[in-house]
Amino acid sequence: MRILITSGGTSEKIDDVRAITNHSSGKLGKAIAETFAADGATIDLITTRQAVNVEGETIHPHYIESTADLERMLKELMSENNYEAVIHSMAVSDFTPESSVTLEDLETAIAKQPSDLPAELAKLDAQRTEKKISSDTDHLVIVLKKNPKIISLIKQLQPETILVGFKLLVDVPMIELLNVAKKSLEKNHADFILANDLTEIHGEKHHGYLINQQQKVKEAHTKTEIAELIKKEVMELEEKK
Amino acid sequence: MRILITSGGTSEKIDDVRAITNHSSGKLGKAIAETFAADGATIDLITTRQAVNVEGETIHPHYIESTADLERMLKELMSENNYEAVIHSMAVSDFTPESSVTLEDLETAIAKQPSDLPAELAKLDAQRTEKKISSDTDHLVIVLKKNPKIISLIKQLQPETILVGFKLLVDVPMIELLNVAKKSLEKNHADFILANDLTEIHGEKHHGYLINQQQKVKEAHTKTEIAELIKKEVMELEEKK
Repeated sequence: MRILITSGGTSEKIDDVRAITNHSSGKLGKAIAETFAADGATIDLITTRQAVNVEGETIHPHYIESTADLERMLKELMSENNYEAVIHSMAVSDFTPESSVTLEDLETAIAKQPSDLPAELAKLDAQRTEKKISSDTDHLVIVLKKNPKIISLIKQLQPETILVGFKLLVDVPMIELLNVAKKSLEKNHADFILANDLTEIHGEKHHGYLINQQQKVKEAHTKTEIAELIKKEVMELEEKK
Repeated sequence: MRILITSGGTSEKIDDVRAITNHSSGKLGKAIAETFAADGATIDLITTRQAVNVEGETIHPHYIESTADLERMLKELMSENNYEAVIHSMAVSDFTPESSVTLEDLETAIAKQPSDLPAELAKLDAQRTEKKISSDTDHLVIVLKKNPKIISLIKQLQPETILVGFKLLVDVPMIELLNVAKKSLEKNHADFILANDLTEIHGEKHHGYLINQQQKVKEAHTKTEIAELIKKEVMELEEKK
């Protein structure tokens, strides 16, 4: 059995010394990788240098930084190998910096009344010669553009794989969390979504809801329980195929 | 001898899951801490959980995340202890996120022609009810406000301490690097500034110029050499006092 797991959080460069990072320790991904590896599965693990270290004879780490790196790595691995399941637990940045300008630059750009303000700002940014943004301004404005949704690529690349997606929200009612997870499941043709709320994650304690295509919901309360639940459900679905 | 060292890079929250981080492995700070500790100095080390781990019987780590945390911790430690030297190698964020809005929100704010656009955007941001910024927009705009300069606090708090500051630029001519370092030395009443260029840092190889108040410049080529040079110069200045 060969499984692809993504884990940790992406980081998107603002300039040569700054980046926007998505917090994620990679501990849940580590628990999932180790749980599958304990059953003899071979794991390709896409992760970051900032995430916790995962070791195991059958676990092969592949290090990336940005969402663009993740996309390239996914395409590469998924063209080389067939995966019984892809478990996409990485916290992926929805946006990537397009331009960084001073407030004065923003006001100059606005005064021109451009039809495309982000494009105008990107032009101003490109004209700046320093590689590190100067701190001689009271306000800095960073414009970010939307990243492609990585999860939607997975079933396009391998329609037969079992896809487990993740949805992390912050301090929302449980019904909203499940509804958002259901939407993500349908939109991305996922087999399961693990829905969780940041306010219910404290170290090893980790409240998760695993929702499947029949809209059945199973709960787990620790990272280990979540990893075991995902393995059990993926194995059962794999057997039915 | 009691020394205060700052090391690693700060991270400034955008929302509950995203932050702007300053890259810094903390390896140079580690080398400096270990070099002073080898001579029996007691070290208070302000650093981050993301930076490399530093161990030593006389090295006391204090963990922080943001620039505001750093300021609080510096004030606390410097009111409790007298330091022979403060070596401020931490990569501190010049800016911290003030508001995050969609491009549509930015355009709405601009149309009102406010006298204070950042304040108007902060108001719009505060009206948003979700704690995690929605990804249902093509462009996101983050406005950052300038952080106080931490290095300028140090001599205000302890005029008698020996202050070593750091200046990191990216791909600039050596003369510009030294001029910027000299300005920082004067402005912050530092005794030394270690000037370095990101393009000349590769693992343990690390080109640094240490400039003093007499504008003498000494060079070092590795992290270990930089640490030894700083220790030697600080000790010599301490003896002269």
